[in-house]
Amino acid sequence: MKIAVLGGDGFIGWPTCLHLSDAGHDVHILDNLSRRWIDTELGVQSLTPMDSIQERTRIWYQETGRRIHFHLIDLARDYEILKGWLAAERPDAIVHFAEQRAAPYSMKSDRHKNYTVNNNVNATHNLLNALVETGLDAHLVHLGTMGVYGYSTVGAAIPEGYLPVGVDTMAGETVKQDILYPANPGSIYHMTKCLDQLLFQFYAKNDSLRITDLHQGIVWGTHTAQTRRHVQLINRFDYDGDYGTVLNRFLIQAAIDYPLTVHGSGGQTRAFIHVQDSVRCIELALQNPPTRGDRVKIFNQMTETHRVRDLAEMISRLTGARIAWLPNPRKEAAENDLVVHNEQFLELGLKPITLEEGLLEEVIDVAKKYAYRVDRSRIPAVSAWTKDIAPVIERDPEGKRLKSVS
Amino acid sequence: MKIAVLGGDGFIGWPTCLHLSDAGHDVHILDNLSRRWIDTELGVQSLTPMDSIQERTRIWYQETGRRIHFHLIDLARDYEILKGWLAAERPDAIVHFAEQRAAPYSMKSDRHKNYTVNNNVNATHNLLNALVETGLDAHLVHLGTMGVYGYSTVGAAIPEGYLPVGVDTMAGETVKQDILYPANPGSIYHMTKCLDQLLFQFYAKNDSLRITDLHQGIVWGTHTAQTRRHVQLINRFDYDGDYGTVLNRFLIQAAIDYPLTVHGSGGQTRAFIHVQDSVRCIELALQNPPTRGDRVKIFNQMTETHRVRDLAEMISRLTGARIAWLPNPRKEAAENDLVVHNEQFLELGLKPITLEEGLLEEVIDVAKKYAYRVDRSRIPAVSAWTKDIAPVIERDPEGKRLKSVS
Ligand SMILES: NC(=O)c1ccc[n+]([C@@H]2O[C@H](COP(=O)([O-])OP(=O)(O)OC[C@H]3O[C@@H](n4cnc5c(N)ncnc54)[C@H](O)[C@@H]3O)[C@@H](O)[C@H]2O)c1
Ligand SMILES: NC(=O)c1ccc[n+]([C@@H]2O[C@H](COP(=O)([O-])OP(=O)(O)OC[C@H]3O[C@@H](n4cnc5c(N)ncnc54)[C@H](O)[C@@H]3O)[C@@H](O)[C@H]2O)c1
Repeated sequence: MKIAVLGGDGFIGWPTCLHLSDAGHDVHILDNLSRRWIDTELGVQSLTPMDSIQERTRIWYQETGRRIHFHLIDLARDYEILKGWLAAERPDAIVHFAEQRAAPYSMKSDRHKNYTVNNNVNATHNLLNALVETGLDAHLVHLGTMGVYGYSTVGAAIPEGYLPVGVDTMAGETVKQDILYPANPGSIYHMTKCLDQLLFQFYAKNDSLRITDLHQGIVWGTHTAQTRRHVQLINRFDYDGDYGTVLNRFLIQAAIDYPLTVHGSGGQTRAFIHVQDSVRCIELALQNPPTRGDRVKIFNQMTETHRVRDLAEMISRLTGARIAWLPNPRKEAAENDLVVHNEQFLELGLKPITLEEGLLEEVIDVAKKYAYRVDRSRIPAVSAWTKDIAPVIERDPEGKRLKSVS
Repeated sequence: MKIAVLGGDGFIGWPTCLHLSDAGHDVHILDNLSRRWIDTELGVQSLTPMDSIQERTRIWYQETGRRIHFHLIDLARDYEILKGWLAAERPDAIVHFAEQRAAPYSMKSDRHKNYTVNNNVNATHNLLNALVETGLDAHLVHLGTMGVYGYSTVGAAIPEGYLPVGVDTMAGETVKQDILYPANPGSIYHMTKCLDQLLFQFYAKNDSLRITDLHQGIVWGTHTAQTRRHVQLINRFDYDGDYGTVLNRFLIQAAIDYPLTVHGSGGQTRAFIHVQDSVRCIELALQNPPTRGDRVKIFNQMTETHRVRDLAEMISRLTGARIAWLPNPRKEAAENDLVVHNEQFLELGLKPITLEEGLLEEVIDVAKKYAYRVDRSRIPAVSAWTKDIAPVIERDPEGKRLKSVS
């Protein structure tokens, strides 16, 4: 298959490209490299030394003889270029990662809120619009997030996208009906993924586009079978307060003897998946497209759930790190349960890598190995969700004032 | 109250400004005049001769001694200017009409789809973002549409925004819960109003903004008590294939002896409200704001429902006009029932003007009076909803080919 990977230079995009190229597909990356620019804006960098996309694809060719093509296109701004590219190249499938994906970054300031809404809504809408306009029947696989569910339920397990509910009719009966799970996003970033869902619903219904939306948990892990092949193929690893997800941040904190910073009670339950499983899921989704006219196919792309404090304790046990309890800058419930259906991928043959088995390797091969590259000042989380949440002062282990959350 | 009316130069915005000014409020219009530019783009004009906004406000001052201030601001593009204006003027309330509001226009081409998504999402999001940033606790009243409900139900009456459903829990019980009515938009325009809903939900929850969303039916009628006061205060009347809503188009067709063009079986049921009732509803909404921390307050702003073919027959009876049956360029159900709850406005004292009583006046005072200004070539509807809907050829009464729907 000819596959366009939008956002193929990113954390999940890059190993996906390698995995699909390795499996024999003709892979084309479309990316505006905005994520690298944001590193520059924030003054942070990947823990792992990461090469340019041109260099990475050159090494891949050198190691495998397979080409991955790179096209510098901004999906949100270059509608005509995107349309022209799709019309000329006519990919069989499209994997869409190309969005601003950090919740804290999306809440940093009004400028960051506007940027996230603009970038994400326009990237997705331009793509859908161009697919209709070019008459391309490519299967679109989009990366959504478990965060669209908002983690708040009435004690029901989280279904794969569609919730069966009972609606009372005027005739006095209760009719069962599947509805898109009511959105309850916790940040501007998560909200854009809810907007995406509506865009998908509309285009699937009006134009019979074939769309799969993967509601993904937090991705952890760094290496996949392909990124291991050469040191310059290594994946990125974000640990800063904006892009570093909870597990990566704990790993780094442990590696440099910084206490594990748990916000609030740590009672928030989150869903997780290893990056190797993530790329495998994307391949499974590509192999099982919906039929023209079907509703949007939704999978929950996650393999296990953990409370944040349990994660901290797991890493503390592995490494001896201490835990520091801090106020929560997010507006969210202190404790939540989370039971998530994910049978669809399991039935398609996914064999999950568990945190229990993979975590130690991550500590040794990644966190400790590259600890010398850590910038301690970049570890505190610095976005507050609302103006009335008081600034949080994070302190480093020596008790020095680090940075205030404002 | 100091009230900002965004989109105050439009069809509903203008009579709203006059109504609120007449009631003693300090009214400020923010508008980018894009609707006038679209008239230019389409080569159409209001049936009623409409003055510039500067001239209209001058006449209002001359007639009443009351000032309505006009500010040329593009909500979607001028975020910083909007924020500066709100910070300086600090209105008590904001009425938000400022969106591209025609479904056919939103489906004309890929450029029009992108324009509508961009304009509407950014106008609404910039406004919400700026309210949070300036710390302004103004009550925001937004004009939504009945179209967010999508007219497809399981035989349940359409509630005012929130649908009570039964959700099965893991414990085996069925819990009743209010959810935002599942969106099922029929066009890109309607979809943007569904996106707006999610933006409102998020900002009401995260930032405790006070928001009222009015899900309005199709507005008919031209005059209000204030627009009648001077010929140069007259409201706009759109009859073209893009902006003219079904009733206006029938009125004009009848006035110039063109057959009433019914698309499909005419079995689609729509909700209606007179413009005089619309401005009254907005005033009632302003008088009854939600409390900080409340969920978004949603009203159905409509007073009666009719099938399109019944409307055509009603006008045919009044005027003797013939009816022409044409293919439907929209992707929608041929027939639908529609029962809509609207008790909230009735309880607040709204006394609806019915079509039965107001229609004849509209035929005589507006349609026949200004029929000399009609451009016949602008009457056919020319947007098709999908690429596979065959072009529709509309013919004029003499059988001449008019224009193809492409
Ligand atoms: N990382 C996670 O834990 C996680 C969890 C759930 C969902 N997701 C989703 O998966 C996708 C990929 O996540 P990631 O962690 O790889 O993110 P990432 O930021 O590392 O990668 C995103 C890539 O998209 C590119 N991009 C952004 N906007 C673009 C635009 N307008 N035009 C072209 N390219 C653009 C960026 O330059 C970057 O290379 C995202 O959509 C994200 O929301 C990620
Ligand atoms: N007319 C109806 O039957 C009807 C029915 C249901 C809902 N509504 C809603 O009511 C609102 C008003 O409808 P209308 O019929 O008066 O529409 P209209 O097009 O006559 O008025 C909209 C006004 O907003 C302005 N505007 C648009 N985008 C703007 C931007 N980015 N910045 C500043 N100004 C901008 C336009 O110039 C115009 O003056 C719309 O939001 C519409 O969706 C209308």
